[in-house]
Amino acid sequence: MARVLTPRAEDFPRWYQDLIAKAQLADNGPVRGTMVIRPAGYAIWERMQAEMDLRIKAAGAENAYFPLFIPESYLKREAQHVEGFSPELAVVTHGGGKQLAEPVVVRPTSETVIGEFMAKWVDSYRDLPLLLNQWANVVRWELRPRVFLRTSEFLWQEGHTAHASEADARAYARKILHEVYEDFLVGVLGIPVLVGLKTARERFAGATATYTLEGMMGDGKALQLGTSHELGQNFAKAFDITYTSAAGGVEHAWTTSWGTSTRMLGGLIMAHGDDNGLRVPPRIAPVQAYVMVVKDGEGVTEAAAKLRDALRDAGVRVGLDDRTDTAFGRRAVDAELKGYPVRVEVGPRDLAAGNATVVRRTGGAKTPVAVTDVVSTVLAALEADQQALHDEALALRDSRTVSVGSLGEAIEAAASGWARVPWSAVGAAGEAEANGKGVTVRCL
Amino acid sequence: MARVLTPRAEDFPRWYQDLIAKAQLADNGPVRGTMVIRPAGYAIWERMQAEMDLRIKAAGAENAYFPLFIPESYLKREAQHVEGFSPELAVVTHGGGKQLAEPVVVRPTSETVIGEFMAKWVDSYRDLPLLLNQWANVVRWELRPRVFLRTSEFLWQEGHTAHASEADARAYARKILHEVYEDFLVGVLGIPVLVGLKTARERFAGATATYTLEGMMGDGKALQLGTSHELGQNFAKAFDITYTSAAGGVEHAWTTSWGTSTRMLGGLIMAHGDDNGLRVPPRIAPVQAYVMVVKDGEGVTEAAAKLRDALRDAGVRVGLDDRTDTAFGRRAVDAELKGYPVRVEVGPRDLAAGNATVVRRTGGAKTPVAVTDVVSTVLAALEADQQALHDEALALRDSRTVSVGSLGEAIEAAASGWARVPWSAVGAAGEAEANGKGVTVRCL
Ligand SMILES: [Zn+2]
Ligand SMILES: [Zn+2]
Repeated sequence: MARVLTPRAEDFPRWYQDLIAKAQLADNGPVRGTMVIRPAGYAIWERMQAEMDLRIKAAGAENAYFPLFIPESYLKREAQHVEGFSPELAVVTHGGGKQLAEPVVVRPTSETVIGEFMAKWVDSYRDLPLLLNQWANVVRWELRPRVFLRTSEFLWQEGHTAHASEADARAYARKILHEVYEDFLVGVLGIPVLVGLKTARERFAGATATYTLEGMMGDGKALQLGTSHELGQNFAKAFDITYTSAAGGVEHAWTTSWGTSTRMLGGLIMAHGDDNGLRVPPRIAPVQAYVMVVKDGEGVTEAAAKLRDALRDAGVRVGLDDRTDTAFGRRAVDAELKGYPVRVEVGPRDLAAGNATVVRRTGGAKTPVAVTDVVSTVLAALEADQQALHDEALALRDSRTVSVGSLGEAIEAAASGWARVPWSAVGAAGEAEANGKGVTVRCL
Repeated sequence: MARVLTPRAEDFPRWYQDLIAKAQLADNGPVRGTMVIRPAGYAIWERMQAEMDLRIKAAGAENAYFPLFIPESYLKREAQHVEGFSPELAVVTHGGGKQLAEPVVVRPTSETVIGEFMAKWVDSYRDLPLLLNQWANVVRWELRPRVFLRTSEFLWQEGHTAHASEADARAYARKILHEVYEDFLVGVLGIPVLVGLKTARERFAGATATYTLEGMMGDGKALQLGTSHELGQNFAKAFDITYTSAAGGVEHAWTTSWGTSTRMLGGLIMAHGDDNGLRVPPRIAPVQAYVMVVKDGEGVTEAAAKLRDALRDAGVRVGLDDRTDTAFGRRAVDAELKGYPVRVEVGPRDLAAGNATVVRRTGGAKTPVAVTDVVSTVLAALEADQQALHDEALALRDSRTVSVGSLGEAIEAAASGWARVPWSAVGAAGEAEANGKGVTVRCL
């Protein structure tokens, strides 16, 4: 087979870029740093949203929508943030055909406006906890953009909650971390993640604790796939989120915030993709089984359509490719690129023997199967390959993680993977030193 | 019962505003003209999206996502549009901490950027039809904003499709009109709509035909709830969307576009709301049955929770209110305001007799029902009241629509409702005259 992508071992960033273009997942937008998410990419994002949203609602949060535009003055409330965001902000100075009296900022996050409204909506302890989530686009100007990983505009969900006690806020930040994010990333995306605390240096501005979920990508590097923050009473004090307690006193609430974004699409690609293209775990795949007509022949197209229907009736998300005016080899390469978990190839020769060929994207096995057994074979393959992708990612992580005792060894190990090192051997000073060498402490 | 809202007959716009505030559907955002969609309002929008999205996908379109920011130069491509939009545009002049070389516009629609990418993606007749849809926020600066109806930022879906022939484009614009929009508005929202063509004067800039769906609101006025446009080859010529035909020639594609927005939330409120609050048709209601504990008593809370579970098991979307520390009367007024289709009230006296009270928001009937019959009674009420709301809206429309023969009579009739008048009695000149008197020709 001709080489379709730059091999990962040769140039991982180039492989990533090639794959996104050739699998038609996304394009660069006309304004630098923005992206167009094409149907094949967006369909995965829609399924990510649906799976996450189920879990977010099960955790008791409700969705709402806050405005894209934020008055500049709001950002000044939270001094730490303005400093953090200012170079990242997109500022609207003209609207309605004239210059605005006060410029407005395109939200880099909705936390300030949500804080403002939480303060209005929370009155008594009966209004707590207030559990809000939003699915939206946000803008942070990027000087070195990379599709899905760092884009000037991205799609995300941001949760913001207010509680009557520190214990309740902490429990909720951890509930989201484990029951929503970890459950989704491991169980659906098949990405084993390290879950833990960030160091003080890496903590979110204003947070008293930042929890992170870190996945290992195919090049041995870490990608942060989600974060959940305890904000103590810092945020409530900045936004005056107070409530009357049962005892009658006025108290500041305890808040949390948590988020995941279209960066997860980048994580999915880099955790599971191989030199032939994307590999999509069956549970998240918009198309789980792809029925392909190899070439025309008596009853071939009809048999393929019947298999498509039988798979659909069995609850499989299924696609059909009967474009026999395009060479089969080209279509097969394309199917590999797009990462459909299972292909069912139907051709005249196989069919004459009562068979179709089941091809598994993970592992690559090609097996002739009696037409009557295709559905059960596909169902079993989807189940097995969900696990296989997870296990392969876990094996990679294990093979590229070493336990060391000193900072020097850890920095050396980070060149090709991860290092597990006692925090007592690092400390804040060691962390600063490692940062200077391009190595970060990801998770405590 | 104390008056909760300004009565509709007294001041319809005021009633609308009161209802949105008291049912906690939305708030005004901090930047003029923007809105915060609160959980009770957003839950309805989410269900609108889900129902519409199913139908859009069944019609063959795929979702994608295009950037929020559009280079100013793109808008100049389509001269008609720049003139149309210029005073509505929000312009970003600063990003990344400095002034931008070319200002970017916050999308008032994505059609220009989608046109640009369609031109890249369409090559041969095999790439057609290209059927794209996007769910996104858009910005059009509003000087006289009204929540849900006219806001500077709103949420919508915009479909854009390219076809190989005029006939195919026309058939698709009509398919969306009928199979997606009309089916949803009538069948799910229970709003009878007039479906037809706009006059040349009211047509979308660049369109060769604009189809509209018009609903009558509680004040007898019309609200446009969706549009579908045939754009001929105008748009393809502006954006160079060409394809190689089977015969080998290079042709311009034929395109369509179509959209609906959060304005539908305003339509839902104004079509079905009454002086006690919102009435949500059961098929769209996030909470279809609301189980309320009237007051504490032996086994009352347990019985209510059991009914909640039984209803949920029967597939009903159900809420439970056991906040017995708040007066029941206040909670009942609130439930009316929020428009839950059916309430199941559980109190000690009823329960001692083995009963609960089923209260229907539409019609207002309160019926004691044996606890064992609650589920079947609720299911029947939901079915019946979906129809009842539709029929009530249809009866209103019929009673406030008159058939007249002249323009003068039509203008007079429009003061209190709609007039059906032969186009031959109006014509372009008559339409201009009517417009001068605040009357528009809505639908041919
Ligand atoms: Zn903060
Ligand atoms: Zn146009």
